[in-house]
Amino acid sequence: MLIRSADASLTEQLSARFGQRIRDRLLSPGARLPSVRQCAQSQGVSPSTVVAAYDQLLAQGLVEARKNRGFFVRDQQKSTLKSAFRQSGYADVAIDSVANEPRPPVNATALIRGMFHRISDKPQPGMGVLPPDWLDSTFMPAAVRKVTSTQNLRAFSLQYGEPAGDTGLRRALSHKLANWHVLAAPEQIITTVGATHALDIVSRTLLRPGDPVMVEEPGWAIEFARLQALGMRILPVPRLADGPDLAVMARYCEVHKPKLYVSVSVLHNPTGYSLTPGAGHRVLQLASLHDFHIVEDDTYSHIAPDHATRLSALDGLQRTIYVSGFAKILAPNWRVGYLAAPTSLVERLLDTKLLSSLTTPALLEQALTVCIEQGHLRRHAERIRTRLDQARARSVKLAMAAGCQFVSEPAGLFGWVDTGTDTDALSQHMLDEGYLLAPGSLFHAERQPGTLMRINFATTQDAAFWKVFERLRKAA
Amino acid sequence: MLIRSADASLTEQLSARFGQRIRDRLLSPGARLPSVRQCAQSQGVSPSTVVAAYDQLLAQGLVEARKNRGFFVRDQQKSTLKSAFRQSGYADVAIDSVANEPRPPVNATALIRGMFHRISDKPQPGMGVLPPDWLDSTFMPAAVRKVTSTQNLRAFSLQYGEPAGDTGLRRALSHKLANWHVLAAPEQIITTVGATHALDIVSRTLLRPGDPVMVEEPGWAIEFARLQALGMRILPVPRLADGPDLAVMARYCEVHKPKLYVSVSVLHNPTGYSLTPGAGHRVLQLASLHDFHIVEDDTYSHIAPDHATRLSALDGLQRTIYVSGFAKILAPNWRVGYLAAPTSLVERLLDTKLLSSLTTPALLEQALTVCIEQGHLRRHAERIRTRLDQARARSVKLAMAAGCQFVSEPAGLFGWVDTGTDTDALSQHMLDEGYLLAPGSLFHAERQPGTLMRINFATTQDAAFWKVFERLRKAA
Repeated sequence: MLIRSADASLTEQLSARFGQRIRDRLLSPGARLPSVRQCAQSQGVSPSTVVAAYDQLLAQGLVEARKNRGFFVRDQQKSTLKSAFRQSGYADVAIDSVANEPRPPVNATALIRGMFHRISDKPQPGMGVLPPDWLDSTFMPAAVRKVTSTQNLRAFSLQYGEPAGDTGLRRALSHKLANWHVLAAPEQIITTVGATHALDIVSRTLLRPGDPVMVEEPGWAIEFARLQALGMRILPVPRLADGPDLAVMARYCEVHKPKLYVSVSVLHNPTGYSLTPGAGHRVLQLASLHDFHIVEDDTYSHIAPDHATRLSALDGLQRTIYVSGFAKILAPNWRVGYLAAPTSLVERLLDTKLLSSLTTPALLEQALTVCIEQGHLRRHAERIRTRLDQARARSVKLAMAAGCQFVSEPAGLFGWVDTGTDTDALSQHMLDEGYLLAPGSLFHAERQPGTLMRINFATTQDAAFWKVFERLRKAA
Repeated sequence: MLIRSADASLTEQLSARFGQRIRDRLLSPGARLPSVRQCAQSQGVSPSTVVAAYDQLLAQGLVEARKNRGFFVRDQQKSTLKSAFRQSGYADVAIDSVANEPRPPVNATALIRGMFHRISDKPQPGMGVLPPDWLDSTFMPAAVRKVTSTQNLRAFSLQYGEPAGDTGLRRALSHKLANWHVLAAPEQIITTVGATHALDIVSRTLLRPGDPVMVEEPGWAIEFARLQALGMRILPVPRLADGPDLAVMARYCEVHKPKLYVSVSVLHNPTGYSLTPGAGHRVLQLASLHDFHIVEDDTYSHIAPDHATRLSALDGLQRTIYVSGFAKILAPNWRVGYLAAPTSLVERLLDTKLLSSLTTPALLEQALTVCIEQGHLRRHAERIRTRLDQARARSVKLAMAAGCQFVSEPAGLFGWVDTGTDTDALSQHMLDEGYLLAPGSLFHAERQPGTLMRINFATTQDAAFWKVFERLRKAA
């Protein structure tokens, strides 16, 4: 909301707001700003204030005016680099190579940035994690303090530490994985800086730039962005209710000989789908026939039932690498993740870890071990599952009352809904109201607008959000 | 030392010892085991014990016998993969592509593994860090406990945290860098999982696979290995006493148009050389003329004089990215590193950090902030510099008395010495005595045997090591 009594003029406030969104890439390069009239209406200011604000953005080089078409966000990076090259007298060859440089699509990181920046005090429907107060516990700080005695800190801080990660944690994880029928000795486990780092290590170890890799679509934006930044060729595999589209995978195998398949088997993001045993079996048959590896991202393991089907369990870690972490259940900032791999791959994966970060900090790995071994984490996860079940029931009712349709059976943390309106445009309007959405376009390898969006069941139990949503949806 | 009274037979002990070295790659694929006679003599066992031990290694598939030539370490990985491909009926094309797969040279990680595995209780001359008791302090554990109150842990643990890293630490680093005349606002600083992660982020952001990159030679093995694993084309630049060989750099620029130059300006590893202001100025002129970026690895900043010349200071962070960390001075396992970059590159570098690890853990970043802000780190570094000066004086005398010649003026943590004998072979013999060396061959992009080695001045003050060294050097 723009406030008339503030130190900055309405024009300055409005231009600062758009400027911030452009820098955070919540407004992507090439995106069109609302028309002067639309903007004046939605912000409750005069058209001349909007014109003045847009002029400021123009002067700052953040937007460009196109004749009779309006104002568009400029691609900062390209233009800055281009002019730098021109100043240095460089030929067009260099400019073209810059333009071709692999870099993450702007939108992939926009959602992430939004997850970190405080948009407003309201619960954020586009968030990828549980709200902090859900994760809070008394055992977490107690576990940290238990491992911070002077003697213990000296024992692990002053040397690099175990390359594979804290021995105690790897032992605890080995036991824990057995509950999910994933049988991995501590020697097959490598700790990482969150599941993200684990997925990064796997792709860097098994793939070379240009290699084809199968990724489920819709899927998690960061996974697409990282593989693209590494120069891999993404083969999107439609994710169906029981598992990936096997016919599409089979065709890819014949034509492209992909080396890796990236899968979220359990409580897939964003659909909430979980793999059936039969589909899992057929995926592994295909993997064996065409000799590709699988990396199974089990990020949502703690909010899934223990009996959920995991490829790593079916496969016995023969050609599957299991990846998980604790950001969704305990402490996102601790950045403790891990992978469990076939014995034959462990050494190569460990080399990649060494080259990318040497070791990982033992302090939080040891604190996590305490949480696991004392049974706190298991009981905490049970409480969260119960709470999430209740939240989901409420959110589903509210979403449907607000005109949304569920594309998939509601399960886990996320709902995948059809809003009936362009969610890219809707997201921009919702930002003005202090809400960050996760529009469906973010879950595709190639950005494509559509009417879907992902909601977080924990943060959409509030009728206030859905009222705003319904109003803007109808206005669209 | 093999012990006759142990549970395992001498044969088992001997084969277990070689097996471990092969797995740790202290014995590289293709390396020849000592002859039966040599081994029997050096281990103080009968030739038949050696034959039996080698047979066990043969049975385990770790070595292969070549007629009339002896026993050689097998390349585990290639042979396993090849046979897996053959079993699956794959064509030779697939096999060749596996053979060409970029992976770190075995020797680069061997030294690292050695740094982590406890070879023996003796001080290790090949180590890359100060011994734990040198780093020990009372302020370190106090700083950790200061930031682990329940309230503080809740405040940062339950959300991902600032993408660029803890705000307090970035502010403290901004002040600290000013002492070294590197002027960086907190917004230009990004925290990382140690300096290694920072260097990784820079190469992934600025380079595409196949891009030419200039790296100082001799240089740190992990840097070569990481760039090779990322598929970059390494252009080795001879490192001279005052800076890089500018004539070679100029030729590279004309022929290959490299995009990046990786440099350790101050207390270069392994030579101990430090850049002169004049050479620094000419490097920057060349960078401007040929439009390449520079990443300056200032890992040894804390043991260097404040007035040392840094490219980042001369350049004003225009095309130089500054990288450093705290593994050499405070706590290697904390894995806190950082980079300071030109404003125009910050966003792209931050994206790469997000894709590789999302955020970094705030706990240790906050503890480090306490150490810096209370002045503890500065005083601790002063004490260590004094102690290292004394150690260096002693080690230099002992090394020269043992027949070594210093290739470069002794300075900083490392000495670069000519032993007059093949240090690859010497390293294998020294391992039997419980000492890990860092042979010169590890400091080149393409492994080449030679007579040089790097010593750690803190761990070579002991006459006992030099006695063993002298004996084995003369026997070689």
